[in-house]
Amino acid sequence: MRIDFISLFPEMFTGPLGHSILKRAQAGGLISVQVTNPRDFTYDKHRIVDDYPFGGGSGMVMKPEPIFRAVESVVNANNTLNKRVILMCPGGQVFDQAKARELAGYEQLVFVCGHYEGIDARIRRHVVDEAISIGDYVLTGGELPAMVIADAVARMIPGVLGANDGAQHDSFYNGLLEYPQYTRPREFNGWAVPDILLSGDHAKIETWRRKESLRATLERRPDLLVNAELSPLDRKLLQEIRSE
Amino acid sequence: MRIDFISLFPEMFTGPLGHSILKRAQAGGLISVQVTNPRDFTYDKHRIVDDYPFGGGSGMVMKPEPIFRAVESVVNANNTLNKRVILMCPGGQVFDQAKARELAGYEQLVFVCGHYEGIDARIRRHVVDEAISIGDYVLTGGELPAMVIADAVARMIPGVLGANDGAQHDSFYNGLLEYPQYTRPREFNGWAVPDILLSGDHAKIETWRRKESLRATLERRPDLLVNAELSPLDRKLLQEIRSE
Repeated sequence: MRIDFISLFPEMFTGPLGHSILKRAQAGGLISVQVTNPRDFTYDKHRIVDDYPFGGGSGMVMKPEPIFRAVESVVNANNTLNKRVILMCPGGQVFDQAKARELAGYEQLVFVCGHYEGIDARIRRHVVDEAISIGDYVLTGGELPAMVIADAVARMIPGVLGANDGAQHDSFYNGLLEYPQYTRPREFNGWAVPDILLSGDHAKIETWRRKESLRATLERRPDLLVNAELSPLDRKLLQEIRSE
Repeated sequence: MRIDFISLFPEMFTGPLGHSILKRAQAGGLISVQVTNPRDFTYDKHRIVDDYPFGGGSGMVMKPEPIFRAVESVVNANNTLNKRVILMCPGGQVFDQAKARELAGYEQLVFVCGHYEGIDARIRRHVVDEAISIGDYVLTGGELPAMVIADAVARMIPGVLGANDGAQHDSFYNGLLEYPQYTRPREFNGWAVPDILLSGDHAKIETWRRKESLRATLERRPDLLVNAELSPLDRKLLQEIRSE
């Protein structure tokens, strides 16, 4: 997969891209990442990328042409790829794990990152395929959200995660929150690891983990249980939890 | 406000912190930011920060002591501050704008960033005040989510945003999505700016913007309208939109 970030602040990507799963995916040749600056697509002396909003109001708005040209340049560079151009926008569709899986099916993703008060609305209407939000909150720019989505999507691309750290135990993978994990030491600061995990009885441990996964979901995110696939054992465990 | 990130990858923060609103807030003396590495709080020869999970299973789990000591060190350094220690976790409370406003009231925020398969559950149970998720998706680590929250929170601290780029027009600020913004040129690629914005009639422009804000919310996020504060004019505009 090719991932393009369209951003006025390319330096923001260096640190996170050098340490996230994207680095490993790049090293393995599974993903190539490129950052393109709309400022390189201005043709005026001062290389202006923003201007006052029509109709008045505070703040500046990102001009449409430099972004349009930047997007065209990365899209045209790979004409044959099955691609998706995405605007990072608090008013977009809210990102979730299903969306990550969907985006992992494209060959090129282009993330347009806004700044200032926003981006000229013609970009959203005519240039991008869709607008995505990572949640119901407002950020300074689209860079962090674009990196968040790229990270979540990269994990879904076959081969990016190793065989021993697959996504199958992750929260949301099966619609439930993850069970609690413990490692050494057995006791620390007076806080002990649950005995069951030291028992060596793998069947019992499996059932305990499933129960704790259900318990965490019931306590913190009961909304997720509505759509989770629950087995007869799951329903029995949930009954146990409710009666404890 | 003092913001502490507890992370095994301090280099991830440099780029984003140097260009987000956090940079301006730091320059203005309103926020100080520090990154602390749990690896600096290991006392064994190999400075080990992760280990195999008790009970078996794939992946590694972050050991509790180095994180515990790292948190203690930044918390004890500022004993008098009104503080909140937050674990970044996909199973935590889902972050939103109301939470950003709430966190902006603290004097110190400590973000504990996980990696690998997860963090020993004793950290969540005994060391942090709460666990927060930025959305229903799984990421490689807690660094990007922690920066997302810090950015959203910083914008809510009085004085961080200038008078001319205040949060009052942002999406979610009043429970609605933002209206579309346009800047020059008036026409571009055959796509024109709505005439009303060039009319100079500020009252009409205000009403148009409110209507478009309501339209965007109705079309993309009708769930937000349930809790939005709507005036009689808003209800009239919504009726107009529905009959268009």
